[in-house]
Amino acid sequence: MPDRPLVVVSNRGPLSFAIDDAGDLVTRKAGGGLATTVGGALAGTGTLWVAGALDEADRRAAEGGTVEAEGFNVQLLSLDADTYRAYYDVIANGTLWFLHHGLWDTPRRPRFDRHWWAAWERFREVNQAFAAQLADCAPKDALVLVQDYHLPLVGPALSAARPDVATVHFSHTPFASPDALRVLPDEVAGELLRGMAGHGACGFHSARWARAFDQCCQEVLGASPTTFVSPAAADADDIRAVAASAGCTDARATLEELVGGRRLIVRVDRIELSKNIVRGFLAFDELLATKPHWRGEVVFGAFVYPSREGLAEYQAYRQEVEAVIERVNARWSTPEWTPIVYDPTDDFARSIAALQLAEVLLVNPVRDGLNLVAKEGPIVNERDGVLALSRESGVWDELGDAALGLHPFDISGTAQTLHRALAMPAGERRDRAERLRALATARTPSDWLADLVAAGTAAAD
Amino acid sequence: MPDRPLVVVSNRGPLSFAIDDAGDLVTRKAGGGLATTVGGALAGTGTLWVAGALDEADRRAAEGGTVEAEGFNVQLLSLDADTYRAYYDVIANGTLWFLHHGLWDTPRRPRFDRHWWAAWERFREVNQAFAAQLADCAPKDALVLVQDYHLPLVGPALSAARPDVATVHFSHTPFASPDALRVLPDEVAGELLRGMAGHGACGFHSARWARAFDQCCQEVLGASPTTFVSPAAADADDIRAVAASAGCTDARATLEELVGGRRLIVRVDRIELSKNIVRGFLAFDELLATKPHWRGEVVFGAFVYPSREGLAEYQAYRQEVEAVIERVNARWSTPEWTPIVYDPTDDFARSIAALQLAEVLLVNPVRDGLNLVAKEGPIVNERDGVLALSRESGVWDELGDAALGLHPFDISGTAQTLHRALAMPAGERRDRAERLRALATARTPSDWLADLVAAGTAAAD
Repeated sequence: MPDRPLVVVSNRGPLSFAIDDAGDLVTRKAGGGLATTVGGALAGTGTLWVAGALDEADRRAAEGGTVEAEGFNVQLLSLDADTYRAYYDVIANGTLWFLHHGLWDTPRRPRFDRHWWAAWERFREVNQAFAAQLADCAPKDALVLVQDYHLPLVGPALSAARPDVATVHFSHTPFASPDALRVLPDEVAGELLRGMAGHGACGFHSARWARAFDQCCQEVLGASPTTFVSPAAADADDIRAVAASAGCTDARATLEELVGGRRLIVRVDRIELSKNIVRGFLAFDELLATKPHWRGEVVFGAFVYPSREGLAEYQAYRQEVEAVIERVNARWSTPEWTPIVYDPTDDFARSIAALQLAEVLLVNPVRDGLNLVAKEGPIVNERDGVLALSRESGVWDELGDAALGLHPFDISGTAQTLHRALAMPAGERRDRAERLRALATARTPSDWLADLVAAGTAAAD
Repeated sequence: MPDRPLVVVSNRGPLSFAIDDAGDLVTRKAGGGLATTVGGALAGTGTLWVAGALDEADRRAAEGGTVEAEGFNVQLLSLDADTYRAYYDVIANGTLWFLHHGLWDTPRRPRFDRHWWAAWERFREVNQAFAAQLADCAPKDALVLVQDYHLPLVGPALSAARPDVATVHFSHTPFASPDALRVLPDEVAGELLRGMAGHGACGFHSARWARAFDQCCQEVLGASPTTFVSPAAADADDIRAVAASAGCTDARATLEELVGGRRLIVRVDRIELSKNIVRGFLAFDELLATKPHWRGEVVFGAFVYPSREGLAEYQAYRQEVEAVIERVNARWSTPEWTPIVYDPTDDFARSIAALQLAEVLLVNPVRDGLNLVAKEGPIVNERDGVLALSRESGVWDELGDAALGLHPFDISGTAQTLHRALAMPAGERRDRAERLRALATARTPSDWLADLVAAGTAAAD
């Protein structure tokens, strides 16, 4: 254990709250990539975790002070709904997420109008509020691990109030290049970079994102921040436990029946602009058009589920995803065969079942901080599944050698990669799957946490 | 005059052809930024100019060999319509333009599918065909000045066939950053960079674009190309002649009547995704919303005319431009006052009249190689007009000090810049207008041409 007591802070905490029919507060473990990554390393350690109160049930939980449940000690920061929407929907998800993933349709978006500037003020206030809460509750000489793009401004405000406290910021997203950063107004870009660089150290999943952040700081601030690289790990024990569950066994039987002995391509993703879901289906369409012998022989299992539906862009993207599925299925279906099997239910056990059975796992984001599913797949897969992996994902650094690489905008190239994966001789599949498994389990969530602690401790000394 | 005989090559030539009612070929001077920039320096010099045959009349002109008219000697390269469409619409305008201006809506575009790859082959063929024609017609030891993003692959092919010939490539667009270039498939990015770097020297309007090209070459090719920076100049004599024409005088009278003694903001642009027309109107809307004293007092003259309507993106953008004009006018109009006066006619004399009368000239591109209108405005303006200029335009390097800067995505900031321009004291307006005029006429088209010749000659020696 580290010398300094740890505190974690993130927008979404490791517990989710609900109010039951009797009006009582019910607590359970939350889902989501960050909760899994960070939670896997922290559950049972007694570490204090500060998170935002996202809805009515959370706000009620916040009133009770620290909640102890599922091995976590959680304090929730209460925010009113309008402030939260401005901070979360408009700035974090509607601006910074788009910035770091390069998702903007620049002739149209972003629009920094007076409504946006008002939301930016709310974002700053929420970051200040998190800092104030931490200043209040962090133990003496604590090391505070600030998680992700929602909270870039916490470190400097916290250090000003509590010079004894050390801080680390970790980004689970990519980071914008200096050229892309110019889309932000100067004062916003400056405050964002100064905020992040004002932590003891800034961590990223890939050296590429750390380098981009460093280049931005050099160009805008004229100084290099302290950075480190530490790719997150999948929680192998946790997903193996899910794989052994009855829910997973049932889902697996259902899926096997649907596939009916055909070859199986799988993707598991939130319906997220950066995940490149539409081009994945267009590549499958081109595969069927150009390699007719796969018609009737392959099923594409698309386990993609709605996300961030409070943003119009995500609603539109979901419609496009569903439209392209309909188009591809209308073009190629036969009475015996549906090319794309689409299930929009967010069901982790069903996703794990699909990852077990996949002969090809397609992970083709246009840009991704890491992409944890590319590690989860090989851990549970039982078919020597081939990983078709975008070189624009952070996890490419670790898994690229054992995966088949693809260029996310190249639909023809992706179709060829799918063909190569399906046609791969058994020996090569086995060999690659073994290497993938070894690479995917080479690090644990505790290794990741240890890197953050080491970086924060070194920076504070 | 240089030692080496000059040849210019560009997609669009300095002459435009039509077939009259009697079936005869009629020749006149062509419009467009490049023809103006390059033509201003070359007219009457007898320099050979090779260009593409864009339509039926051009193809008939191509059959006749070299055409001498309007002071130019033009040879047209005949291309069949399908090949031309693939080369021009799909690759040059639909891919490379979007790449260099950062216009892609990455979750959706680009899509490098098999139709795109077939178009890329056509693009390569057209570049080879230009190189072959030049190899055939260039005088011994000629210096060939290759113009713009349509023809990046000409240099190496030409040099292979004609080692005596020297080449220069000049980009009238911005250039992609290394991060943005990753959107292209590797082999395409490599061929593009090797093609351009295979010219004796590569020129750009701004040091920023030259640096981006250099960074791309270093990252992808591992070597630095020879670059130079030479911003193009407006042809002051030519536009002053238009300003003195009867057409301009008439247009000016019409516009003065429309404006009715109110203050006048002007923009003159193709309806082009990179020109940021919609956000310009949204900024005007925010100005009227936040500074009520300008209501009824200011007219925004929008002389924006359709462009590239063969591309669906441009048709959609035109609809958005017209919709926002309608919305702003519906919101603020009174019986006596229409806030935005919109005229989609492409009429150079009318545009010059508007530039003469403008009290504020809005030039707010999201990204622009140069933006010649920012130089043309100050040359003819008679109202000590203020230039509200995007810092993302290439011309920012030359005019930024005398202009009011704006950030193209910042609608609130742009509204404040418009307010500041309208409210500027007469003394400061006069001072800035004088400096703008001096800066805008500091260089001539001949200076620009001399830079290309010097760079090409130096590289060949």
